[in-house]
Amino acid sequence: MNYPNGKKAQPLSNQTNQTFSNRGMTLEDDINQTNQYYLDVDKAVIHKKPTPIQIVKVNYPKRSAAVITEAYFKQASTTDYNGLYRNYYLDFEAKETKNKTSFPLANVHEHQIKHMESIVKHGGIAFIIIRFTVHNETYLLEAEKLFPYWYEKQASGRKSIPYKEIKQTGYLIPFKYQTRVDYLSIIDQLYFNNH
Amino acid sequence: MNYPNGKKAQPLSNQTNQTFSNRGMTLEDDINQTNQYYLDVDKAVIHKKPTPIQIVKVNYPKRSAAVITEAYFKQASTTDYNGLYRNYYLDFEAKETKNKTSFPLANVHEHQIKHMESIVKHGGIAFIIIRFTVHNETYLLEAEKLFPYWYEKQASGRKSIPYKEIKQTGYLIPFKYQTRVDYLSIIDQLYFNNH
Repeated sequence: MNYPNGKKAQPLSNQTNQTFSNRGMTLEDDINQTNQYYLDVDKAVIHKKPTPIQIVKVNYPKRSAAVITEAYFKQASTTDYNGLYRNYYLDFEAKETKNKTSFPLANVHEHQIKHMESIVKHGGIAFIIIRFTVHNETYLLEAEKLFPYWYEKQASGRKSIPYKEIKQTGYLIPFKYQTRVDYLSIIDQLYFNNH
Repeated sequence: MNYPNGKKAQPLSNQTNQTFSNRGMTLEDDINQTNQYYLDVDKAVIHKKPTPIQIVKVNYPKRSAAVITEAYFKQASTTDYNGLYRNYYLDFEAKETKNKTSFPLANVHEHQIKHMESIVKHGGIAFIIIRFTVHNETYLLEAEKLFPYWYEKQASGRKSIPYKEIKQTGYLIPFKYQTRVDYLSIIDQLYFNNH
């Protein structure tokens, strides 16, 4: 585990106690719950964007709510989550993989990379959260560290990022009861030089 | 018109030339077009959030895309637009009214006010864009100026904000060919002390 600021990984009691397993909860569930907690304690304002839907037909029955009867999923043009934390614009994508040894780059789309590049350029914080379900580990990888892998994919057909490299260049996100994916603890270390 | 920084309103040629009318385009269309332009020229990264939908039934026909056959509109828990500009997190709601003399406060929901309060508190820029379709004028009103009206609604049943007061406390957004609602020109003046 690669801690920023030269700090050694300190085993926190609530970080190593994995008796309350997150198996069965999806990464999205865990992040939504975490964001709700951040909101409840007024720590940050971060939301998942709704899934983009192309609506084709809507019925308006009398005295009841409009019913959408034909619609299609659209590809998102940005990442899934964004918000505001300590004056900073935050933007990230979250992906889980069942792969043991690597994270397939097919999980990330070109427009998402372009979007994250714009975010970094305009002064925001962009990253990807990657969960290896088999290892029950969730990592934060800064966008700036994701880009080179992506360009290797474009240039020479790189298929994936090895799990070992994510372990080295990413940051293991602590799993806590109220913040099942406490990614802001990593952001605090990376950008604010503290816990 | 109330210009920030004591500046007098300068009639810009492309601001007063209203021969290319925006009648027929909705405020949402105009803002989406403006945001696309900001994105194209790499000025800002601001998107409309997708409409939140509660999906109930989905069909997966063979060899074709999944079809949503039953879904409902959900009330948004935040504002419609957010993004990043000059290192700042930006967040806003946009409403148009056919009313000539006032903006009905029923257009704004309590959770949106709470959301905007959080944004301001955490260091973001929050505002509302109000279009008076009859006057063909679009105003930016800072969230901090909207809040007192909202609390008067809660406390004493205030129904609306008079058009005249929005003219005084808000900022007329210039209408330009490529940026039909050039709200960032107002943000530049308000927060960056320049054009």
